[in-house]
Amino acid sequence: MATRKLQRGVSVVGSAVSRFGAFPGTNSRDLMAEAYVEALASVDKGFDPEDVEALYLGNFTADLFEGQSHLGHLMADHLGLAPRPATRVEGACASSSLAFRQGIMAIASGLHDVVLVGGVEKMTDAPAAEVQSYLAAAGDVPIEVDQAAFTFPALYAAMASAYMARYGATREHFMHVAIKNHENGALNPKAHFNQSLRQTMDRRRQRAGERRQPVPEWRDEIDFLNDEKANPVVAWPLHLFDCSPVTDGASCMLLVADEISGSFTDSPVSVVASSQASAGPFGTWDGDITSIPSVRAAARGAYEMAGVSPADIDLAEVHDCFTNAEIMAIEDLGFFPAGQGAFATSEGLTARDAGVPVNVSGGLKAKGHPVGATGTAQLHEVWTQLRGGAGERQVTGKDLRLGLTHNAGGTGGTCAVHILERR
Amino acid sequence: MATRKLQRGVSVVGSAVSRFGAFPGTNSRDLMAEAYVEALASVDKGFDPEDVEALYLGNFTADLFEGQSHLGHLMADHLGLAPRPATRVEGACASSSLAFRQGIMAIASGLHDVVLVGGVEKMTDAPAAEVQSYLAAAGDVPIEVDQAAFTFPALYAAMASAYMARYGATREHFMHVAIKNHENGALNPKAHFNQSLRQTMDRRRQRAGERRQPVPEWRDEIDFLNDEKANPVVAWPLHLFDCSPVTDGASCMLLVADEISGSFTDSPVSVVASSQASAGPFGTWDGDITSIPSVRAAARGAYEMAGVSPADIDLAEVHDCFTNAEIMAIEDLGFFPAGQGAFATSEGLTARDAGVPVNVSGGLKAKGHPVGATGTAQLHEVWTQLRGGAGERQVTGKDLRLGLTHNAGGTGGTCAVHILERR
Repeated sequence: MATRKLQRGVSVVGSAVSRFGAFPGTNSRDLMAEAYVEALASVDKGFDPEDVEALYLGNFTADLFEGQSHLGHLMADHLGLAPRPATRVEGACASSSLAFRQGIMAIASGLHDVVLVGGVEKMTDAPAAEVQSYLAAAGDVPIEVDQAAFTFPALYAAMASAYMARYGATREHFMHVAIKNHENGALNPKAHFNQSLRQTMDRRRQRAGERRQPVPEWRDEIDFLNDEKANPVVAWPLHLFDCSPVTDGASCMLLVADEISGSFTDSPVSVVASSQASAGPFGTWDGDITSIPSVRAAARGAYEMAGVSPADIDLAEVHDCFTNAEIMAIEDLGFFPAGQGAFATSEGLTARDAGVPVNVSGGLKAKGHPVGATGTAQLHEVWTQLRGGAGERQVTGKDLRLGLTHNAGGTGGTCAVHILERR
Repeated sequence: MATRKLQRGVSVVGSAVSRFGAFPGTNSRDLMAEAYVEALASVDKGFDPEDVEALYLGNFTADLFEGQSHLGHLMADHLGLAPRPATRVEGACASSSLAFRQGIMAIASGLHDVVLVGGVEKMTDAPAAEVQSYLAAAGDVPIEVDQAAFTFPALYAAMASAYMARYGATREHFMHVAIKNHENGALNPKAHFNQSLRQTMDRRRQRAGERRQPVPEWRDEIDFLNDEKANPVVAWPLHLFDCSPVTDGASCMLLVADEISGSFTDSPVSVVASSQASAGPFGTWDGDITSIPSVRAAARGAYEMAGVSPADIDLAEVHDCFTNAEIMAIEDLGFFPAGQGAFATSEGLTARDAGVPVNVSGGLKAKGHPVGATGTAQLHEVWTQLRGGAGERQVTGKDLRLGLTHNAGGTGGTCAVHILERR
């Protein structure tokens, strides 16, 4: 496919996420309203909600989680945007990155100048047994679920096993993803789990002490994660702390045509690449499931569109739905050669103060993974970091210019890669 | 909102629908493949599937009907399009009009030159009792469904009652929509019900005779529709033959940038307007439910964008999910003044040989209403008619230049209006 250029440039001038966590008694509309109000307030020179011309809403399946389809128009009504057009976009866990991409096209096409994009998922009210099957609906149900009885942890576990076998990695390498992302999440007040694994350990130890149960002799985080009672297996080799949580949350961003961004801010962030690719179920990947073809294709498209290389990226938010997913992502995105992502992570090369800080927000792992909200939440972190507004978790010691997001639906059936640039 | 112009023009160069009906043992992917193969063959100068750059797929809720979310990537894989991007777009019954609109933006934005758009719904395998609740998920579930116990026939029945009370219309006016659309559907070989009401009556009479049951003395179609046994009430005043059926089907179209359309056809059809609007549930419409605010807004936007008026439209496919919906649509689209649509229809002013032929395909009423497929199926009919390829049902006696589609999700929560022009 030829390298593409937008007919009109697009800037992000406002952005926010709701709190991420478990919020009984709320619904998708409540969560999105929380994010929207904060996004309006985030615009440096102020923003009149009347200026919003359209809404693109990423949502995986309120159909199953809330029994509610057709969420776009309800959200437009709830946010006071009707009669403006509202469109729900779905690509499983990549839904709001696709909504972001549609917002870009809506502006670049000339149809709109100011667009609200975002995503939401309200997951925690569903019975735990149902959540598994709702999430499995992102796979190829007739084949992967009905015939092969795969759950999503099992699909990613198969990829993790293949990776370990091929590259000699161990569970410990994956654990370093969890440790790093919980450390980052501890600095993110919106995160579902805003505590490091050490804090988690200490609290568990305290609680165990209060109940006068024997206190295990944890030496450090790795020992903690190796304790099958503290960290039980989900689908070997993936254990509880290898999995991102089931989370409620919303995120949204205000996009405008580049030429009018000055009315909203003197610190705009431009979209320099929007790239998306598909893949069939992993049975169609020619036998290698240690690398995801849609991620490679989307990454290639993004770098071409922005005219940059992986080495130019100053920070990245990647789709760590499971710890091994982050390892595969940083390889498929070209930050590390195939087979080196696990070792690079263990050596700290993706830490907040390293060459390529990965998931400084805490990632899906610690920040939480409200499926439809994740894409624009990743973009929100990049926008915030590029503008130097990330507070305690701000990446320092380098000039942040280019940030990348990688958002994958299913086992990479859908992948979107975006690159933002501080102007 | 200001009048908008596309940065690049977009043409439709290929189009098809699958058979519409009840097809046990098929799934969404089978149905779309059927439409896609025929769409490829419909391109005058031939079409290489490798040229497709992206897929936009309208689907209401395979989540509920098939237990399958994330349908975009599976469809891309099934049609041989991976790794090209595939995005599912949802706006209830307007889903594929929104997919069409996203395809337009994808090309106008400069990101793509050739895009496949379409929609699908596989509805008839779900248990009848479930279908009702799946369709109700297009409403405001917490309010309209959980609290007010509305079904969709009941929501439209409320609008029908209000219309009758306000304008002195009777059930008989609505019946004329059914009679006309079944007459049109009888000429459409792809229609779910491709027989006129008179043929339906005759067949029922024959069958009743075979079973040696008493044959009712039907005088004509109106008597037939007034027979509560032949046409039982669903939600008063709406009876069985006021309702569109539950249907399986798919539809798709090939869109290209205007400047390359000559490589595909010498008879391109251009998109001269794409307009979309939202509305909240009808409790938010300021007390008048005889007219839908999103339809008025979308129509106004479409006429402005195309620079035409309702009188310029040569034929229209409108969203007759219920007979009274067609009446409201032809008023809100400006073809007839408020309160006159019912009388105009009864006088034959929307018949195939009249001034504004409406639903010459048979409409949702007779052609069928596979929810996610309906929008691009409407556009397919307009494309076919504008190119003179509609066979027996071709509108004759006038030069067809401009055709309009009106596609509404829910009770008009989402409305898309498109205008196509033969170049």
